[in-house]
Amino acid sequence: MFTLNQIAEALGRPVVGDGTATFARASEPDSAGPDDLALAMSPSYADALKSGKARVAILWDGADWESFGLSGAVLVPRARLAMAGISAALDAGPQMNIGVHPTVIIGDGAEIADGVSIGPYSVIGAGVRIGRGARIAAHVTMAEHATLGGDALLMQGVRIGSYVTIGDRFIAQPGAVIGGDGFSFVTPEESGVERARKTLGDQGDIRAQSWTRIHSLGSVTIGDDVEVGANTTIDKGTIADTRVGRGTKIDNLVHIGHNNRIGEDCLICGQVGMAGGSRVGDRVVLGGQCGVNDNISIGNDVVAGGATKIFTRVRDGEVILGSPAVKMETNMAMYKALRRLPRALEQLAELRKIVTIKVQGSRHDD
Amino acid sequence: MFTLNQIAEALGRPVVGDGTATFARASEPDSAGPDDLALAMSPSYADALKSGKARVAILWDGADWESFGLSGAVLVPRARLAMAGISAALDAGPQMNIGVHPTVIIGDGAEIADGVSIGPYSVIGAGVRIGRGARIAAHVTMAEHATLGGDALLMQGVRIGSYVTIGDRFIAQPGAVIGGDGFSFVTPEESGVERARKTLGDQGDIRAQSWTRIHSLGSVTIGDDVEVGANTTIDKGTIADTRVGRGTKIDNLVHIGHNNRIGEDCLICGQVGMAGGSRVGDRVVLGGQCGVNDNISIGNDVVAGGATKIFTRVRDGEVILGSPAVKMETNMAMYKALRRLPRALEQLAELRKIVTIKVQGSRHDD
Amino acid sequence: MFTLNQIAEALGRPVVGDGTATFARASEPDSAGPDDLALAMSPSYADALKSGKARVAILWDGADWESFGLSGAVLVPRARLAMAGISAALDAGPQMNIGVHPTVIIGDGAEIADGVSIGPYSVIGAGVRIGRGARIAAHVTMAEHATLGGDALLMQGVRIGSYVTIGDRFIAQPGAVIGGDGFSFVTPEESGVERARKTLGDQGDIRAQSWTRIHSLGSVTIGDDVEVGANTTIDKGTIADTRVGRGTKIDNLVHIGHNNRIGEDCLICGQVGMAGGSRVGDRVVLGGQCGVNDNISIGNDVVAGGATKIFTRVRDGEVILGSPAVKMETNMAMYKALRRLPRALEQLAELRKIVTIKVQGSRHDD
Repeated sequence: MFTLNQIAEALGRPVVGDGTATFARASEPDSAGPDDLALAMSPSYADALKSGKARVAILWDGADWESFGLSGAVLVPRARLAMAGISAALDAGPQMNIGVHPTVIIGDGAEIADGVSIGPYSVIGAGVRIGRGARIAAHVTMAEHATLGGDALLMQGVRIGSYVTIGDRFIAQPGAVIGGDGFSFVTPEESGVERARKTLGDQGDIRAQSWTRIHSLGSVTIGDDVEVGANTTIDKGTIADTRVGRGTKIDNLVHIGHNNRIGEDCLICGQVGMAGGSRVGDRVVLGGQCGVNDNISIGNDVVAGGATKIFTRVRDGEVILGSPAVKMETNMAMYKALRRLPRALEQLAELRKIVTIKVQGSRHDD
Repeated sequence: MFTLNQIAEALGRPVVGDGTATFARASEPDSAGPDDLALAMSPSYADALKSGKARVAILWDGADWESFGLSGAVLVPRARLAMAGISAALDAGPQMNIGVHPTVIIGDGAEIADGVSIGPYSVIGAGVRIGRGARIAAHVTMAEHATLGGDALLMQGVRIGSYVTIGDRFIAQPGAVIGGDGFSFVTPEESGVERARKTLGDQGDIRAQSWTRIHSLGSVTIGDDVEVGANTTIDKGTIADTRVGRGTKIDNLVHIGHNNRIGEDCLICGQVGMAGGSRVGDRVVLGGQCGVNDNISIGNDVVAGGATKIFTRVRDGEVILGSPAVKMETNMAMYKALRRLPRALEQLAELRKIVTIKVQGSRHDD
Repeated sequence: MFTLNQIAEALGRPVVGDGTATFARASEPDSAGPDDLALAMSPSYADALKSGKARVAILWDGADWESFGLSGAVLVPRARLAMAGISAALDAGPQMNIGVHPTVIIGDGAEIADGVSIGPYSVIGAGVRIGRGARIAAHVTMAEHATLGGDALLMQGVRIGSYVTIGDRFIAQPGAVIGGDGFSFVTPEESGVERARKTLGDQGDIRAQSWTRIHSLGSVTIGDDVEVGANTTIDKGTIADTRVGRGTKIDNLVHIGHNNRIGEDCLICGQVGMAGGSRVGDRVVLGGQCGVNDNISIGNDVVAGGATKIFTRVRDGEVILGSPAVKMETNMAMYKALRRLPRALEQLAELRKIVTIKVQGSRHDD
């Protein structure tokens, strides 16, 4: 059980009413029971709140809390930010005992700091270093000479490759793979695809060739406070490391190819794909299913809408959309025009008919 | 070895010819050997059937089975439906012994019903409940307080998160992750991306800010008879659970973000991505690589073609296509017009020239 | 430490200067230290090379190596190809001891050739065959009767399904799933989606129906020299096997559905999705996030740019782009026209106004 005072303190906001009132969990306002803290942080939840049974609630700033029959409440000005505080305060986190499970296999020379938990059957390679207070769930592998920062959290089945370096407070959801080999191949002679890229479409004479592998001598470097989603993959670099900057958050099933360098405080949503060798600035937001071509540069503070495919350079602060990506306003103008196009083609045909007749008529007049 | 009578019974259809004829496996008609059951459920397979060596076959309704030199056959009216029956009858299923492998680690208070199989090195958390006859392969993890229904099947390396609730006869292919944390972050003050969404493109003044995490207090609830593909990820909800309704089938590498609520009997194909907080009705079909924006509503019986990107509300029964999604017929009209556009622009330019001359000429005449 | 002579031999190129000069690792030219081999294979790296401290380098053909203060160098004509040789020569590969770890569980009748390594907690099913010199990392599962060729490499957590057949020198990055069940379902009666595909948009009367599963009786067959990326999934076939031909390379998070048949020496980039039942020829290159419809045919030597969605047949040697895919030059013409469309619609409106006036005016004249 929590008290309203506890959550108020976590949010840095005063209690109105009885701060000693208790609750067991947070709930949506309409389904809240008498042991629940109702979350109703906008006036649009007022009716739902009345139909629920909560005795305590988090309400929008300015709410007439007494009118809802509550014994107490906390009023907050910015709902999403309050959600961060509330959810952090109430999240028990994954159940992990401090200590290394006896089934864990640890390689020679690995250094494991104090207060580290490692779950059943995890395998820690030679020379690995794990920082103080890190928590590692079951079935995780860390290959030789990988480094994990303090207070990091690796969920079930996460794979950390050899020589990967990760900062403090890193979180990886289940199945994330940090440090697979880069996807880099070359043909003995110039290939059709190389020629097609140069000529924008002409492969020239096609010759059968097989692909030779370019190995990844680099690894991956990840800054502090990064989070990586379930089954996301981040590949090693060819010579230098692939890089993800401090504070960047990456969603599920994202593909970060080799040699990409991503800045700080970015938000990279589900199923984004980055081919390889590109640079992404700081505070960039890539919506779900965006694609980033190889070897391009995306500036700081760029925002790309969902499913935007970025083939060429993007400047600082641009808001882009579409495939290929253009400024959002350009995309919208193009799309609006395209919606009108079938009708416009009819108008054009009519016009041609009239003008042809007219021209002929006028010729006749001459 | 199977007999033709066995498969006829499974299909609820009569045998023509010798029902005691035996076969070892199903094959394509042209490569079928004398021990094979040839699957030739449309007249287009007649020639292939002749070039194979099968003595028994499943044929299209009305086939002259004796003309193919078979000793027996079963004739079926709907090929794909017959495939379901045939494949179910002949599938031996994964090799799993009933019982819990001695290497399995089981947490306090876990309840495992009769007839459950759990493969090597799987880890079952505290308070987990597993229904009668469920089969769990090697290397599976179920975190604390997860519930799995009867006759469910979890393949290798599946990850079930804490407090996830799953119905009967659930199937999860290898590497599926049910119950990773939702991807939800907020900046202390309104961010550029929030402003860009409001204004459709204008971020306003850009200010450096870091992302604060919104934890997932909810989990995932999945109904009966659901299937989830390899390496697919379904995230926990923020307050309430993310939901997948009874009978819904989800393919590989699909991303279902937090707070989504998906109805019953849906078909969600490979690499579909759903951002978060959206509702999908019953019997919805989303083709491969579709994208669903956050916080939108998709009605019942909607069909979306491959790679459709759904940014806004879709009504019951609509068939949609394109990026952004529109009705399929609208998409086709727009695309047809776009194909004609380069030529139309030339025509427009010619017309402008003529009309300008004409106008000037006619001005001259005046 | 390596010598310059060693790397020259690996590349089949002569040393210029002191071949006995040593280095510890390869580096980018500007950050290279005195123990590094600087990789500067194009004249554009000349300045970077001067600012680094390398004493040995790989340089572009024709470089004036002495001007960079080096003690020795190797000059190469084709940089990317040289990278393959250099990276192969310097890659130590994953740390794996020859031998089977005592925690490995091996099923009845499995045949494991000489020189095979299998890492901790891996589970090898009954009847599995593993070829000479294969290396299998920790946490891998191979289900019953799977076959893996010689000198193959399976990284951490790879899942190989039952009856999968894989050739020599196969490489699978962490989390790849080869041989999950195909995604194939049917309704008892024709479904809305079947009708919508036939009619291009009309579902007819909608009737509530549930999906019946079509089981996968086939498996997966993969040729020699194939590589598969992290968390990629390749599904089993329905009757015959899903096939990937010799020499084909597949990147991360790719989805290859059931019954697809992919030719030799293809390059399939990150997050490509193939629905099912399609044929892809030899030497086909599919850029990142491409989609391939079900039951279509793609010829040999096709090149598809990033995010191309292929709905219909593609002929040998075509270079395609866009959604839906068209020849790259057609796509570019359409896109160029679309960019001009908003302005063209204005011109069309002006023209209509003029012509209408003119027509009226000229009518008046009559």
